[in-house]
Parts: sequence; C-alpha cells; structure tokens
Amino acid sequence: MRRQLSLNAFLHDTGHHEASWRHPASGAERIGDVEWYQEIAREAEAAKLDAVFLADGPAWWGGAHRPANQFEPITLLTAIAAVTSKIGLIATASTTFYEPYNLARLFASLDQISKGRAGWNIVTTFSEDAAFNFGLDGVPSTEERYLRAQEFVDVVGKLWDSWEDGAIAVDREAGTYVDTGRVHAIDHVGRFLKVRGPFSAPRPPQGRPVYIQAGSSNDGRAFAARNAEAIFTAHQTLEDAQAFYRDIKTKARAFGRDADQVKVLPGISPFVADTAAEAEELYRSFNELTVPAYGLQQLEKMAGVSLGHLGLDERVPLEVFGHAGNVLDNNRSRRQVVANIVERDRPTLRQLLHRLAGGRGHNVVHGTPEQVADTIQTWFESAAADGFNVMPPLYPHLLTAFTQKVVPILQERGLFRTEYAGSTLREHYGLARPVSQYAASQTTAALA
Amino acid sequence: MRRQLSLNAFLHDTGHHEASWRHPASGAERIGDVEWYQEIAREAEAAKLDAVFLADGPAWWGGAHRPANQFEPITLLTAIAAVTSKIGLIATASTTFYEPYNLARLFASLDQISKGRAGWNIVTTFSEDAAFNFGLDGVPSTEERYLRAQEFVDVVGKLWDSWEDGAIAVDREAGTYVDTGRVHAIDHVGRFLKVRGPFSAPRPPQGRPVYIQAGSSNDGRAFAARNAEAIFTAHQTLEDAQAFYRDIKTKARAFGRDADQVKVLPGISPFVADTAAEAEELYRSFNELTVPAYGLQQLEKMAGVSLGHLGLDERVPLEVFGHAGNVLDNNRSRRQVVANIVERDRPTLRQLLHRLAGGRGHNVVHGTPEQVADTIQTWFESAAADGFNVMPPLYPHLLTAFTQKVVPILQERGLFRTEYAGSTLREHYGLARPVSQYAASQTTAALA
Repeated sequence: MRRQLSLNAFLHDTGHHEASWRHPASGAERIGDVEWYQEIAREAEAAKLDAVFLADGPAWWGGAHRPANQFEPITLLTAIAAVTSKIGLIATASTTFYEPYNLARLFASLDQISKGRAGWNIVTTFSEDAAFNFGLDGVPSTEERYLRAQEFVDVVGKLWDSWEDGAIAVDREAGTYVDTGRVHAIDHVGRFLKVRGPFSAPRPPQGRPVYIQAGSSNDGRAFAARNAEAIFTAHQTLEDAQAFYRDIKTKARAFGRDADQVKVLPGISPFVADTAAEAEELYRSFNELTVPAYGLQQLEKMAGVSLGHLGLDERVPLEVFGHAGNVLDNNRSRRQVVANIVERDRPTLRQLLHRLAGGRGHNVVHGTPEQVADTIQTWFESAAADGFNVMPPLYPHLLTAFTQKVVPILQERGLFRTEYAGSTLREHYGLARPVSQYAASQTTAALA
Repeated sequence: MRRQLSLNAFLHDTGHHEASWRHPASGAERIGDVEWYQEIAREAEAAKLDAVFLADGPAWWGGAHRPANQFEPITLLTAIAAVTSKIGLIATASTTFYEPYNLARLFASLDQISKGRAGWNIVTTFSEDAAFNFGLDGVPSTEERYLRAQEFVDVVGKLWDSWEDGAIAVDREAGTYVDTGRVHAIDHVGRFLKVRGPFSAPRPPQGRPVYIQAGSSNDGRAFAARNAEAIFTAHQTLEDAQAFYRDIKTKARAFGRDADQVKVLPGISPFVADTAAEAEELYRSFNELTVPAYGLQQLEKMAGVSLGHLGLDERVPLEVFGHAGNVLDNNRSRRQVVANIVERDRPTLRQLLHRLAGGRGHNVVHGTPEQVADTIQTWFESAAADGFNVMPPLYPHLLTAFTQKVVPILQERGLFRTEYAGSTLREHYGLARPVSQYAASQTTAALA
C-alpha cells in the first residue's frame, strides 16, 4: 500500500482564525457546550481522521477580544471519547506545572476510557502567567524546563510500565486478582523528581499514550528527536518544512530511532471553496473581521516585537527582528517564522497581522479542493510532511469543507484511508506498541 | 413537602464487599471497561439517586487479593457525565498531592461538561504510599495537612470566583468576547500556596462544585463544619450516628453556617432479599468468600492493629485497642469504629473480619426491602442522617435490589423524589449556589 497521510483536526473553540468568533455563522455562543466539541469530533471521525488535538496552558491569556475556553483538555477529550470509537485524542499537558503521578493517572485513564486512543502533546510551557499560578516568580530557564521534561517523561514511562501486561490474573478460586510479581516499584530518584511507584493502575491499552512534541526551538527539537512519536510544527514554505523534516529525522536516527516512527505533522489552515476566487474572498473576509489591537498583542507575545507605533499601512521594517538568521533563540522559535515572512514578503503591518491572524504562524492556504489537496500531496511527497494538523479557520463549516471536498480527493489519490484499519491512535499513526521496560523478556528479575 | 432523603451510589469496582469480585456473578473481568461504570450510573440515575461517588488516593494499595482499578475518578466521572443528564458526579481528590490550579481546572471542566453536576470530596490523604509518589519522605502531620487543605480550598474558591457570572459578553460588533472588568486576579500569597490567577476559564455552572468531606477525626470534623456541604461518614449504630450528626451541626452553626446546608450522609451497605432469612444467607455467603490474609492486612491499615497471631476463632482481646474511648487520634478515626465493635460485640477474629469485609467500617445491613427502608427512615427521622451513601455489596445486582425494591418504598413513604426537580447536584441536595466573592454586590471595585 502507498504511504498514508496522517491528518488531525486541531480543535480550537470557534476556529483557528483569530476573528472567527465574530463571523455571523460562528459558534461563539456554543463553545461552552461540550456538545459543540463532541459534534466536531464525530464529524472528524466520520471523515476517518487520525485524531483530534487540543492545545493548552494553565493560565488565562485571552483578554477581551478572544473566546474564553471553558474546558481542560483531558476531561474534554474524555467526554469526546464517550461519543466516538475510533478517532485519536491528543491533549497538551505541561511537564513544568504538573506532578508526574497525577498526570500519568489522567492520561492512563483517558487511554483506558477510550480503549487506546490517547496522545500526549508534551510541552514545557514558556509562560510567566502560568508560572505565577504555580507559586513561581518566573519561568524556569529553557534548559531547566527541558531537563525536567526529560526526567518527567522517563518517570511517567516507568509508571505506565510498572504493571507488566498480563499482571491481571482474576483467579476467583485462588482469590488472586493481581499477579503482584508483575507489578514493580520504580524507585525513581532524580534531579527534579522522586517517585516510588508502582502506578495506581494496570498498564494502559497502548502501553503509553502516543508522545507528541510541538516546540521548534533547539532544545525542543532535541527533545522531540529523542522522545516524540509525532511532531506538530509550523512552517510557511515548503523549503522551511523540508529543512525541518530532514533535521528531525536525522536527529532521531542519531538517537538510534527508526525515523519512520517519528511523524512530522505541520499545521495547515485551509480556506476551501469551489473556485480560487471564492476561496480568496473567503480568506479576505475573515481578515476584515480582525481587531488590530489584538493582533498586535499576539504578535508581541509570539515574536517579542512591539509594532504599535507603526501605521497599519506602513511597511514593517526588517530591522526590528535583527538579521532574521540570528533570532532563533530557544524561547522564541515562533519569532523566526515571523521574521521569515517579513524578510520574504516585506508586508505592511496590516498585511502581516492578517497573515498571522489565520494560524498564528502556521501555514494558511486558500484555494479549491484540488489546490489544497495538491499542496498537501506536494509536501507529503517532497519530504516535508508525514501528514498535517488541520486547523479549520471556522468550525464546523471549514472543517466540513475540508472533510467533504479535500479528503475525498486525497482518498481517490490513494493517500488517505477510507476506513480505519485499527482502533488505537498508535495503529492510526502506524506506531509500535512499546514493551514494558519491566517485562521479563527485558529484565532478568522482578524489581520489586 | 416532606424533608427529602439524599441518596448516593458509592461506586467501587465489583462492589463494596471486599470479596465481591470472587462471586460467580461478579463483573471481575469487566471493571476495566468504562461501560461497566456507565451502566451502573445510568441505573442509579433511572432510580433518581442524587449522585454517584468515587473514593480515591494517588497510590496503589491493592495487593493480590483485590481488584485493580483502572480509572482516575475525574476522568471516569466525565465519561459518565457524557451518558447521563441528571445524576451528580462526586470525585475524591487530595489537597496534599495536587496543585490547586490544576485541580481547579479539572473540577471546573467536569462541572461544565456535566452542566452543573460536579462534587468534590476533599481529602488530605493520610498515606505514606501516596507521599512516596510525590517526592516526600513521609506524610505531613495532620495539622499541616489540614492547614494546607484550608488554604487550598480558599485558593480554588477564589479561582472559581475570579470570573464573575456574566463576564462573557460575546459582542461581535464591538469585537468584545470577555468583559475583562469582571475577571479578577486573585493574588493569593499564603503559607503553602502562591497563586496569582485569574482562572483559565469562566465560572463553572454551579459557581463551584459541591464541597464534600469524609474524615471523622477532630481536624476533619472542624474542616467539614467550616467548609463541607455534605459529609460522608461511617457509623455502626444509630447512637454513634446521632452523636456525630449533633456534633457536626453544632460546629457548623458555630461557624455561622446554616446547619441545613451541611448534609450528613452515613454509608450503608445493604444486602436486600425478599425474606430476612434469604438476606442473612446472602450476607453469610459473601463472608465465606473472604481471604483472611487480606482482611488482616486491611484491619492493620485501617485500625493500626496487627492480629495475625490470633486464631480465627479466638475472641479479639479488647486490650489491643487500649481503652476504646482513648484511641481516637487524628490520624486513625476509623480505629474508633473497630474498637467500638470489639467492645460492644466481643467478636472472634473471624467474626470481626467478616464484619469489616462488607463495608470497611461502614454500616452493613441485611434484611427485606421493608426492613432496610425502615432503618433508613429511622436514621433519617432521628437526627442521625440527612441521607445515605449507598454501598452495594455487589454491583450491579445489589444496587438493582436497592433501587427496585427499597427506593420505591421510600418513595411511597414520601421520603424520596420520584422525579428530579432540578438538574444540578446543588439542586438535588437543596444547596444554594454561592455568589462570587468578587461580584459587584460584595466588593466595591474590580480587583484587577
């Protein structure tokens, strides 16, 4: 069979365009209803998408001009799990602001409830607003956050492995429910964490949730190459995406990993319409709805540059970014994306804000179903992507346009499934189920 | 209308009798399926019960002889929320081992997903096994745990209040989604916690989940009288229950609270059958299934006494508990329950183990539907209980016996609803929805 695309629906209240909630047809009043998300997920499942995905951080960043999200992702995905049966469920959660034992329990429970559909987007949360909600006076350094992240991932991996597969005996006659010889203390003592274990529950269906990573900083890439099974990334051009793809796969091989077990999934935010002109008009009409003050705020958060002194129709000076090649620091990988746009296209401030309004630096495309399918196929077949994180500008309408018009083209071309072959997220992504590190085949004696 | 009973179904894998999983008809193989719990909850909802409840602690205490529970309670109740519409959903969570911002988000999300049905059983978790999973070398003292618990409850209350009701504007024309004047930083700095806020999401439907408390130690009672809206408690006799009820209501009044807004709900584990002889035989048959080694282990954990040196048919010496009146220390309130049984009934070791096997110190009753209904009515009308936490010895069979045979009698007597009047847990329990402490009617200016 032909190599297959992975396609996720990235959930985001009314849609990914920052002004989507102002659209007359938006669900601005409905995003507090769990049914809003359940319906979208069912639509994504009907189209055989791999997963739905939720971003997250433990703070409020919204302000006046943006929808307020009522839900915590693991619980929301659990509610979605209850009304779906195949689609994967990927939640973002922070290694900086969680206790590993608590987070391990939440993900294991989601994996169990969904019968093997959980994924964990592992983030270290670069945010002062979050730090202030957890007793800290500031964000730990990038190095420290990633050191803790690695230890955190090691610990939760040990916890999930601490019950070997087959530890459940259920022998009524003998009165033995658990084969305790297959349940192991983990006795972890590290720089950041000390956790004895064993885990509170048997091993989850997938062994562990699928590990996902979404940062593109140097530390983020190294962490991803070592740990992640899928990587969510943001690129504006095929060339940037190819360079990233090559870099990640090379780094993964350097860790001794099979590069095919590391899926690279850039974001794509598609405005799909029957003609190219209609699609462009659709895109333009959303940009008309933006609130410039909000766009400036977001630009400042995202790229660390303040452009409020410019007129909307003034050209953005390249100098504010320094030389574009130099601004990739560990905390601000998104700044590079913005600097690249400014260097390449020399936009006015209004044009730049519109450019970012659609996908916060992700690739916003507009076109006919064939054009969008062509872009996807080109990236997929040019070593730029193993699939995409689809970010509809307006839910559900522009998800529907994608699933009804673009997905069938991809299916006709043999690039995307017409039925689910498996029922776990690992199966959808073509990822192996890991063996417990405490299983007898790997260790010579029970550790506890 | 006559004063109404509150009745919860306390969920517990195959049932509350410790040997229930060995029963030939048990769901021992099914307790890892979310559908197992969803079906039970739907049955409880069909009977118009107030809530389902899950106990919890972040460690594994099970051993070989007890079912292994696969689920974390907040996620499991979320999965139950998705297939029910009225019944309350009460999860246990620890103030000692959670970050308040994370826990506040999980409960707010459950309350939002369930449209106002969440309850929080607030525990401080006296457990070394748990402490070792969170980097500690031992359990903090009772005093310290309860000091943190009070601060924790204050902080999460502020977080849930930090968005006033009505902070969501959704003004498309103006581009204003949130009325930021109604969203407040909490700026909490205390002995244990430092949390700036505001909360990540609008105020949950109930304002905050219903607060429940289940410890009977002196610190536990004081905490409950100050904070709890419902109290889960364990009593073997009407007299003990009356004394507790009187004490809690008096203490609540001393905190300036309306004692009717503090529901006292003892546990009851009913073996119901058509005749008294059948019910007694049913009870006896479950006790036959117990594993004495497991019962001794549980007794040691629960009461801090080791009786493995006694023969099963030897009488338990009262001396091991010291004088019963003296053993109520803060960490071991359940020990009192055991000591009382030994003092009152002078059981053999086997009899004591059987007595505790049913409900871990809760009141185990056996009888006809009328007899069980009589017990409930007597306690309810003798200032011993405002309702009960029903603990079926075997799920679903002995829940079914209760809902099909006992509940209708209580309904005929006018003591229990035949339809839900409201749709939130606060409404079921007859509890007021709290006003945000940041609302204009209570403070003269926005704090942030």
